[in-house]
Amino acid sequence: MSSKYNSIKEECYKANMQLNALGLVVYTFGNVSAVDRKNGVFAIKPSGVPYEDLKFEDMVIVDFDNNIIEGTMRPSSDTKTHAYLYKNWSDIGGIAHTHAMYSVSWAQSQLDIPIFGTTHADHLTTDIPCAPPMSDALIKGNYEHNTGIQIIECFQQKKLSYKEVEMILIGNHGPFTWGKDAAKAVYNSKVLEVVAEMAYLTLQINPNAPRLKHSLIEKHYERKHGKSSYYGQ
Amino acid sequence: MSSKYNSIKEECYKANMQLNALGLVVYTFGNVSAVDRKNGVFAIKPSGVPYEDLKFEDMVIVDFDNNIIEGTMRPSSDTKTHAYLYKNWSDIGGIAHTHAMYSVSWAQSQLDIPIFGTTHADHLTTDIPCAPPMSDALIKGNYEHNTGIQIIECFQQKKLSYKEVEMILIGNHGPFTWGKDAAKAVYNSKVLEVVAEMAYLTLQINPNAPRLKHSLIEKHYERKHGKSSYYGQ
Amino acid sequence: MSSKYNSIKEECYKANMQLNALGLVVYTFGNVSAVDRKNGVFAIKPSGVPYEDLKFEDMVIVDFDNNIIEGTMRPSSDTKTHAYLYKNWSDIGGIAHTHAMYSVSWAQSQLDIPIFGTTHADHLTTDIPCAPPMSDALIKGNYEHNTGIQIIECFQQKKLSYKEVEMILIGNHGPFTWGKDAAKAVYNSKVLEVVAEMAYLTLQINPNAPRLKHSLIEKHYERKHGKSSYYGQ
Amino acid sequence: MSSKYNSIKEECYKANMQLNALGLVVYTFGNVSAVDRKNGVFAIKPSGVPYEDLKFEDMVIVDFDNNIIEGTMRPSSDTKTHAYLYKNWSDIGGIAHTHAMYSVSWAQSQLDIPIFGTTHADHLTTDIPCAPPMSDALIKGNYEHNTGIQIIECFQQKKLSYKEVEMILIGNHGPFTWGKDAAKAVYNSKVLEVVAEMAYLTLQINPNAPRLKHSLIEKHYERKHGKSSYYGQ
Repeated sequence: MSSKYNSIKEECYKANMQLNALGLVVYTFGNVSAVDRKNGVFAIKPSGVPYEDLKFEDMVIVDFDNNIIEGTMRPSSDTKTHAYLYKNWSDIGGIAHTHAMYSVSWAQSQLDIPIFGTTHADHLTTDIPCAPPMSDALIKGNYEHNTGIQIIECFQQKKLSYKEVEMILIGNHGPFTWGKDAAKAVYNSKVLEVVAEMAYLTLQINPNAPRLKHSLIEKHYERKHGKSSYYGQ
Repeated sequence: MSSKYNSIKEECYKANMQLNALGLVVYTFGNVSAVDRKNGVFAIKPSGVPYEDLKFEDMVIVDFDNNIIEGTMRPSSDTKTHAYLYKNWSDIGGIAHTHAMYSVSWAQSQLDIPIFGTTHADHLTTDIPCAPPMSDALIKGNYEHNTGIQIIECFQQKKLSYKEVEMILIGNHGPFTWGKDAAKAVYNSKVLEVVAEMAYLTLQINPNAPRLKHSLIEKHYERKHGKSSYYGQ
Repeated sequence: MSSKYNSIKEECYKANMQLNALGLVVYTFGNVSAVDRKNGVFAIKPSGVPYEDLKFEDMVIVDFDNNIIEGTMRPSSDTKTHAYLYKNWSDIGGIAHTHAMYSVSWAQSQLDIPIFGTTHADHLTTDIPCAPPMSDALIKGNYEHNTGIQIIECFQQKKLSYKEVEMILIGNHGPFTWGKDAAKAVYNSKVLEVVAEMAYLTLQINPNAPRLKHSLIEKHYERKHGKSSYYGQ
Repeated sequence: MSSKYNSIKEECYKANMQLNALGLVVYTFGNVSAVDRKNGVFAIKPSGVPYEDLKFEDMVIVDFDNNIIEGTMRPSSDTKTHAYLYKNWSDIGGIAHTHAMYSVSWAQSQLDIPIFGTTHADHLTTDIPCAPPMSDALIKGNYEHNTGIQIIECFQQKKLSYKEVEMILIGNHGPFTWGKDAAKAVYNSKVLEVVAEMAYLTLQINPNAPRLKHSLIEKHYERKHGKSSYYGQ
């Protein structure tokens, strides 16, 4: 099927399959989207379709006001959250949402994930934020849209930049991650899950484990992401 | 082999194999059944047969009074529990029982699994009930039949509907789950295991983790199961 | 290679490969033996040979006084423990030893594994015993032979029957299991590992979890192993 | 490509692939090197290259003063740590570094791993040391070089021999292991991860678990590594 959106459908499809291959989803509990900034739309997984049945043509094309532009299936029930984030954060190219075990358990604990080590600092320099549950009025309203608002307000209150911190936990729910494209969003979901498990184990071994020193946070982040980074090719 | 029960034998066989593929059973510690309401019988796994040797023709056909209607093998040792539930709960189509790790550990703890997040609320709106161990007299009596009584009495005492809450833990033993068919019962066994692990981890991270707000419980359940649900196709 | 011991070599080889396939060993940290009562010998895995290189002809034939009867390789370093148990417990046909994760962790904790549920009671009616570390003199002496003594003395002190309780933990070391043949010994190693993980999780969830009621212990053991057992074919 | 370094490139490549196959790395978070003492160089994994794309020709040849001798790719960002260890510890042939789950969690806890059992004692006779985080000045300086200094100073302070203790945790970071060749370094990374998980579980089950008796430490180490060792072929 010829479509000017085939490129993001393909990107979106591959990223969703990767999410599953990485062990981050059970059944259909997760979704990834990929944006096309030029056309102001994104491709997202259809709702409730098992991964083994998923085809790249099934990806649904939606604009930032939640209108379905192309596709015959109903998009993910979390679509409005994706749309709101794309609309407000102009530099992200992909978004992922999972119910991965350790990420969800921290979200259910309603606690930020403390920065305990360099695995964490290789990716971000702050604790991983956990947004508090939203008010009853917002929940009863346009829930998924309001989840987007909740994420952005949490970043504003904590004075975080979405370009530097590419992940958040929604209290009682689970993680959202993003990045320059859908593959990076999925990568961040995996990194979050690994860091969440490490932080859990660290506190089980030593409830008084100290947070990472500022100098070490800076060093590791800089060597991977700074101007004179020397990680990767 | 031609039999009017081939359809439920096939359904039962596939669901048992799925239970194993999902990592919910060790050796032969689990069983699934599928009902045929028109003929008043159900198909159930034979007792103690390894999954790699299991064939669809091995499924045993039993009526709701525990008479073997068709089949040459001895049915699962838990057959009477299945029969009692089918007889009393006219709207269920399949039942599954496992000794899955986290479900059993909560059952051994004799505690209900608190509702901590939306993964749980996507499937049911209450804590997952744990029935207390039965009295010595009932244990020494018709044990598996009495396990069925124990399940239904627990639902009555807790004022739960088996149509809305499709799972229970038997104290010191393990989980039983059910649903509209055998595949849904197996699905519920997997969901229960995931939710049980998440609740365990949540309490390890934060022993004072708050239960999910009522508004969020309602929202998530409604969007997946309510009249205006918008999950799935 | 024709040998009158080919039958136990084959049994021993298969059981060792099964131990590995069940995820109970890392590298070469485990061993299984199979006895030939008529000839008063047993076959045991050679020491330190990776599973991927292991061949059935490599199994070493040893008598109950630790003489090598057939084979060119050095037998497992735990051979004398196997020999001592075969010599003293005339009704066992196979022995397995592993360094499986949860079994070892309980052994390192130097605690018996409490009987918390029916998964445990389906296999034995008592706590799983943990033998205390032996005296310094015995350790410095004929260590592996003395490990055999340690096992049997522990059973005597706790008034346990090796025919009913087919497993033990050696404090600070790990599990030994046995059974009517090598396959059953391996089966018991897996059951022990599963029960050990369940008991660990149970105490994490509820440090005051009650032990299983006597009536339920009896019921489950009897339905699987008693005179009127109705489990299996 | 003909090169006098093909032998260590091959050794290094295989060891890196093994590290991944053993489940010790996520994405590219790990690296192994292999030394050529005669030529005073070592082969090390290129930085940030996914394992599925890695080829043996990609291995980078570096000397002990961090000069790239052969190769077109940038070497691992931890290369200076490897170089410093090779330069100072003349008897090691390979080094491995991972972000494996339990090893990192102990490192983040900033605690030595206590010797609780024979799985540990089969490999070393002391606790597994955890070096404290280095001073801010050293972190801001030649960081990876200083990590090498930190490792060797920790061994000096704790009076440990690198020939007997082939592993260390760097506080807040993760494990480094080494051995006679790259394969042995990888083996030690796996053993460390297993022992780290066992020690974690032991303390969860019994916070007062006793350390291993001295006599048992000696016995197990001697039977595997002593003059009259009787483990292996």
